[in-house]
Amino acid sequence: MGQTRSGLPLALPVVALVVQKFGGTSVADTDRMRIVADHVARCIRRGDQVVLVVSAMGKETDELLHLAAQVSSSAPGREMDMLITAGERKAGALICMALADQGVPAQSFTGSQAGFLTDTNHRNAKILEINPYRIKESLANGIVPVVAGSQGVSPERNVTFLGRGGSDTTAVALAHSLQADLCELYTDVSGVFSADPRVVTRAQKMPLISFDELLEMTATGCPKPAMRSVEVAHSYQVPLHVRSAFTWEPGTLVSDAPSSKEDSPMEQPIIRAVTHDLSEAKVTVSDVPDQPGVSATLFRELAEGSVNVDMIVQNVSDDGLTDISFTVPVGDLERAMEILNGGVAAKLGANGVSADQSIGRVSIIGAGMKSNPGVAATMFETLANNEINIEMISTSAIRVSCVVAADRAEEAVQRLHTAFGLDG
Amino acid sequence: MGQTRSGLPLALPVVALVVQKFGGTSVADTDRMRIVADHVARCIRRGDQVVLVVSAMGKETDELLHLAAQVSSSAPGREMDMLITAGERKAGALICMALADQGVPAQSFTGSQAGFLTDTNHRNAKILEINPYRIKESLANGIVPVVAGSQGVSPERNVTFLGRGGSDTTAVALAHSLQADLCELYTDVSGVFSADPRVVTRAQKMPLISFDELLEMTATGCPKPAMRSVEVAHSYQVPLHVRSAFTWEPGTLVSDAPSSKEDSPMEQPIIRAVTHDLSEAKVTVSDVPDQPGVSATLFRELAEGSVNVDMIVQNVSDDGLTDISFTVPVGDLERAMEILNGGVAAKLGANGVSADQSIGRVSIIGAGMKSNPGVAATMFETLANNEINIEMISTSAIRVSCVVAADRAEEAVQRLHTAFGLDG
Repeated sequence: MGQTRSGLPLALPVVALVVQKFGGTSVADTDRMRIVADHVARCIRRGDQVVLVVSAMGKETDELLHLAAQVSSSAPGREMDMLITAGERKAGALICMALADQGVPAQSFTGSQAGFLTDTNHRNAKILEINPYRIKESLANGIVPVVAGSQGVSPERNVTFLGRGGSDTTAVALAHSLQADLCELYTDVSGVFSADPRVVTRAQKMPLISFDELLEMTATGCPKPAMRSVEVAHSYQVPLHVRSAFTWEPGTLVSDAPSSKEDSPMEQPIIRAVTHDLSEAKVTVSDVPDQPGVSATLFRELAEGSVNVDMIVQNVSDDGLTDISFTVPVGDLERAMEILNGGVAAKLGANGVSADQSIGRVSIIGAGMKSNPGVAATMFETLANNEINIEMISTSAIRVSCVVAADRAEEAVQRLHTAFGLDG
Repeated sequence: MGQTRSGLPLALPVVALVVQKFGGTSVADTDRMRIVADHVARCIRRGDQVVLVVSAMGKETDELLHLAAQVSSSAPGREMDMLITAGERKAGALICMALADQGVPAQSFTGSQAGFLTDTNHRNAKILEINPYRIKESLANGIVPVVAGSQGVSPERNVTFLGRGGSDTTAVALAHSLQADLCELYTDVSGVFSADPRVVTRAQKMPLISFDELLEMTATGCPKPAMRSVEVAHSYQVPLHVRSAFTWEPGTLVSDAPSSKEDSPMEQPIIRAVTHDLSEAKVTVSDVPDQPGVSATLFRELAEGSVNVDMIVQNVSDDGLTDISFTVPVGDLERAMEILNGGVAAKLGANGVSADQSIGRVSIIGAGMKSNPGVAATMFETLANNEINIEMISTSAIRVSCVVAADRAEEAVQRLHTAFGLDG
């Protein structure tokens, strides 16, 4: 028993309130749903209070999107959200039935019923606040509440969808709102790894990780949990457990307990993970006059076009002209180029706009880098020794990122994982 | 009473172990030392266990450096460290005498006696480990241990100095090693502010801040506590209280308790602070061939010359040439330029090396930026609307930084503080 200094229970209280989120693959078919129900029943028998959050079954969301595309070319936001959110409702209702078979009374709730008030940005709504009084009532009556993930209701009382991966956000936000002891994110991987195990065979599962390390990791390519949910967990310090609904083994605890530094010299830099992201494209706006307003115009226009700009690098040289490079999700690239070529580049006086889809972003994440300038040099050397060219660099207090050619990114991850002693 | 979820005591346990560090101005003269002794005596009477860490008195370190410069042109590291560390020893011994006058038994300890083992990098040694058995013994005997800050002993048993601002690191590392309940850093400011109060009259003291926010803030110009100590506090989650030894009012608690987000819409980005740093210079190595090894060579040579590189921005354009810009402390600029012009620039095939000392780095720090691309755009617009040109941009998951002209940096901070609603 005992607690870490930062308060995450190593052993939960005798009766713990736990929010458990099950992703799409965990509830892909009715067999899996029965397995989930069995797991929940065990938790209840052990005395825990459980709130479930469920995603849509397997590929259901894709199928609903496909149906919509067959019937409509305009895909109006309000109706799209009404359609898509049916997926999670269906999964929730089925899980409740499976729980009843286990003798566990359960009730499903839509996002709206669960008290999720969102903005009106259909298909990508943000949570404004949560009033989960029906969930609390259900818990008080000994009934397991099962909440449909990734959905809410707008101030105009329309159903809204939080976007892909939104069930993680539902779970984390609900855990905060209910002051739950723990939020368990059940997925098809067994935790957070020091690198993608598909790329690095010797990648290690990290038993413990801090909120800010996970935030930088998910912001630079670690696919799970969804980055938005990590932002909420980071802001509100919601203790997470990222774990597998297939092996049920202990996964990765996310808290601010000190991580694995104890064995190392105190002020030594400790690299914890190497991430990579192949899902972004790089855009360069070249030879822009170096004067006030250029970046403002550029990034406001992109923000208004809902282009999600990630890494921004600008660097002015002596000739009074500047190149601005940034990365965007590949899916946003076409829109970004339309905006740029549709007048913005001309307005900025740019000499050209180029895009490169064949990039990979490779990042190292860890602590103590600022006082140890050799860390960045070691990263650059490791890449150079393997003839991997660096196209962009950006640094933060706990991260160094390099953009390299996409077809060299995985090798870069492997070499860096070895160079920083993560092979275990 | 009560605890925040992340475990930082809002009210300390009845008997708490507190490490209290007093900076140079707090012990500048014997009057101030008596005031500090009086404060410590009150804490002891309240039942706390106190470990003191002291800096050298006022300008003492500067005076010792001045003496050295008058007698030697070579300033050998071993003797310099022996000389400089005398300052903290003197302050520690005097504080012990002042405590005795208050009826509080106290004993002073050098860094070596306190168990600080460091590397051999004289004048800027790093802590390897701490074996504070004499401190524990002293505490067990009811004697207040007073530890000379910023010093230790190398494996070769030479006295080492941790560098300027090293007493903060001594205190934080000792607090971790002793598993203290709290580390109080007493200084001449009353806490951590949303911006430098000398620049922004409406800057607000932040009652609570997270480790990673403080890390990004000190990495981008917030002068206190010293960045290195924040790296240690961040790595080991040492609860800090940054407060004034002049007003004695409550200051800023650093923990991972949720900060002031509770009143805002859940997924809204929250900008917490605007920092600026005028102490750095920008170096641009221009028209380097875009090929593997360039960054590696550059930053390894700089690291070996002990040049502390901070922000790195590299951006490749279409012509196969790249400019690499980075910032260094102004004090490291001459060395950096010597290294670059002494062969490294030629080796890299660079077309030129330029330096600009008249830069200021302005940063916004906060949570939820990644899901809200408008944050960066708002920053750029605010600067543009005030005709402030941006020379470099770099982003992280919780920060956006812009390099601007030094003489516009303070205005930039003021405008951003207002634009992000921090004026209170």
